[in-house]
Amino acid sequence: MRFTVTGTEATHLGIRLVRAFTGKPVVIRFADNFRGWHDHVSFPATGAAPGIPQGVQDGMLVLPPGDIEAIHAALTTRSDIAAVMVEPTGASLGHAPLPAGFLARLRTLTTAHGALLFFDEVISGFRCSPGGAQQFYGITPDLASLAKIVAGGFSVAALAGKAGILAALDYRKTGAGAIVSPRVMHQGTYNASPVSAAAGIATLKIIRDTGAIARANHTAAALRAGMNAAIARKGINWCIYGEFSDFRIYAGAPGETATVDAIYSGAIPAARLKGGMSAELIQQLRCGLLSEGVDIAGWPGGLTSCTHSDAGVERTVAAFAAALDMMGEEGVL
Amino acid sequence: MRFTVTGTEATHLGIRLVRAFTGKPVVIRFADNFRGWHDHVSFPATGAAPGIPQGVQDGMLVLPPGDIEAIHAALTTRSDIAAVMVEPTGASLGHAPLPAGFLARLRTLTTAHGALLFFDEVISGFRCSPGGAQQFYGITPDLASLAKIVAGGFSVAALAGKAGILAALDYRKTGAGAIVSPRVMHQGTYNASPVSAAAGIATLKIIRDTGAIARANHTAAALRAGMNAAIARKGINWCIYGEFSDFRIYAGAPGETATVDAIYSGAIPAARLKGGMSAELIQQLRCGLLSEGVDIAGWPGGLTSCTHSDAGVERTVAAFAAALDMMGEEGVL
Repeated sequence: MRFTVTGTEATHLGIRLVRAFTGKPVVIRFADNFRGWHDHVSFPATGAAPGIPQGVQDGMLVLPPGDIEAIHAALTTRSDIAAVMVEPTGASLGHAPLPAGFLARLRTLTTAHGALLFFDEVISGFRCSPGGAQQFYGITPDLASLAKIVAGGFSVAALAGKAGILAALDYRKTGAGAIVSPRVMHQGTYNASPVSAAAGIATLKIIRDTGAIARANHTAAALRAGMNAAIARKGINWCIYGEFSDFRIYAGAPGETATVDAIYSGAIPAARLKGGMSAELIQQLRCGLLSEGVDIAGWPGGLTSCTHSDAGVERTVAAFAAALDMMGEEGVL
Repeated sequence: MRFTVTGTEATHLGIRLVRAFTGKPVVIRFADNFRGWHDHVSFPATGAAPGIPQGVQDGMLVLPPGDIEAIHAALTTRSDIAAVMVEPTGASLGHAPLPAGFLARLRTLTTAHGALLFFDEVISGFRCSPGGAQQFYGITPDLASLAKIVAGGFSVAALAGKAGILAALDYRKTGAGAIVSPRVMHQGTYNASPVSAAAGIATLKIIRDTGAIARANHTAAALRAGMNAAIARKGINWCIYGEFSDFRIYAGAPGETATVDAIYSGAIPAARLKGGMSAELIQQLRCGLLSEGVDIAGWPGGLTSCTHSDAGVERTVAAFAAALDMMGEEGVL
């Protein structure tokens, strides 16, 4: 296992590496899953992609999220697949969870067909566990991109993966002793920039030496429990879900059973989970929370950090209950 | 004129914007000119490009540096050119200067043929002048990428350009008042990241309110003059050149006249200027400087900042003269 520290956009560099390493041009990614803004990842499965050449789009195979059969079909019928990219928690740190057993099947499938497995751990790295989602789930990819927590929020990213793949970035000597260029050049103004690198070292020491991840997970679990209790008291068809230092608010549709079990069993489609709360409903709930002095980011839901306190949890849960009461009084629930 | 602050890789975003704005797929750039490491700009004019799909390469037309006739021919015979990208000082802040009058002709040509002019001001921005190379030369591009000095070395970048082009990044309202997505989405973890943005504000105030740029230019001019005097005393066919806060060391080939005038008149080819000092010669000169306690970065040559002192100039010039003496004694000059 090796690391390289990049300015940012480790995902872009990773896509080049999997193509260079395998000699194959096509990378699989999921529709409606955010993998960054650069050309290879930021066009939709169908429809217009202003400014992104067709030749770039042809290099990515955009499949339905979590559809293992579609990946299986692609790997068995095509010989041009370099890698499969996936956020191992499911999109946006589990906002839309992957089906049970998906990662293990994907690991087996990619290995069997000579494709690389590339995890986007930009959110999950140093959040799900000190070893990221790959440690939490026990599935080791060939390559993983990291950012955000890796330097405590300072601007830097990293690419981690099997040494043989990252070796494409090395200068090396020929038999005659001459130094030759890497297969993949990666110069860049901000690669391993000093301030960001120092922030990274400091952050990773905190992750290693303190209970920062457990603390953030504990806070989120307490938030989810408290908010779900408020929902139960109110008797509405909502639920709060999440697995790590995160909480997601889901408002069930009429006839739908909005429970944590229903969500993790796959009974509610990803598109519903990601778009299930209307902009109006979010606005009403947010106004209710703000009137109680509480704001959250990452609607519908948010992330917790190791600095959030038990008092903050209590205040947030109380504000959430009060906001539901207000919405009930106004007839919007 | 508008700005947008990006995590990094403003050049990549700029390439997408010129394609989205013009609806044309091809961008012209120069061979052997570093424009960043992402896929669109980091493959050579000919030869292997591991990991970069053919469809990406097809979107860039790589022409000989500074060849205005080649650009003219492309613009008159093709209808798919979105923009021409150029570092307005010539490659690597004038390491290989552009021909006299090149920028003015390029501005006229691109306007006449409906192509955008895109300056890479990553090095020159806030170095050549407070308004960058575009202010210094009096040639205004349609778009410019900025980094490095823009945040005093902290990791961030910016894209500046005509408001109509940057408007592709805006959310906007339809006639019915609904908010619709930008033509070009540009989400990103580190866009306008707080620490980098604060560093940027502080740096730009210093640039505006102090003589930082003039001071760095003065230092480099004093270095160039002192080093050229040492070269003249030694009677060797070298010269030191540069226009801004930079100095370049050039060792003339036998039969070549290595003077500042020869370099700026275009008498010495770009390939010679960029590769004219062998790795061995650089190693010998560097060892001589190091033995005098002086090191420089950016071989063959370097950049100065506003913090370099007159005493540093004197010491560097003396070390350079001593290194030339050592090299003469060892018979390598």
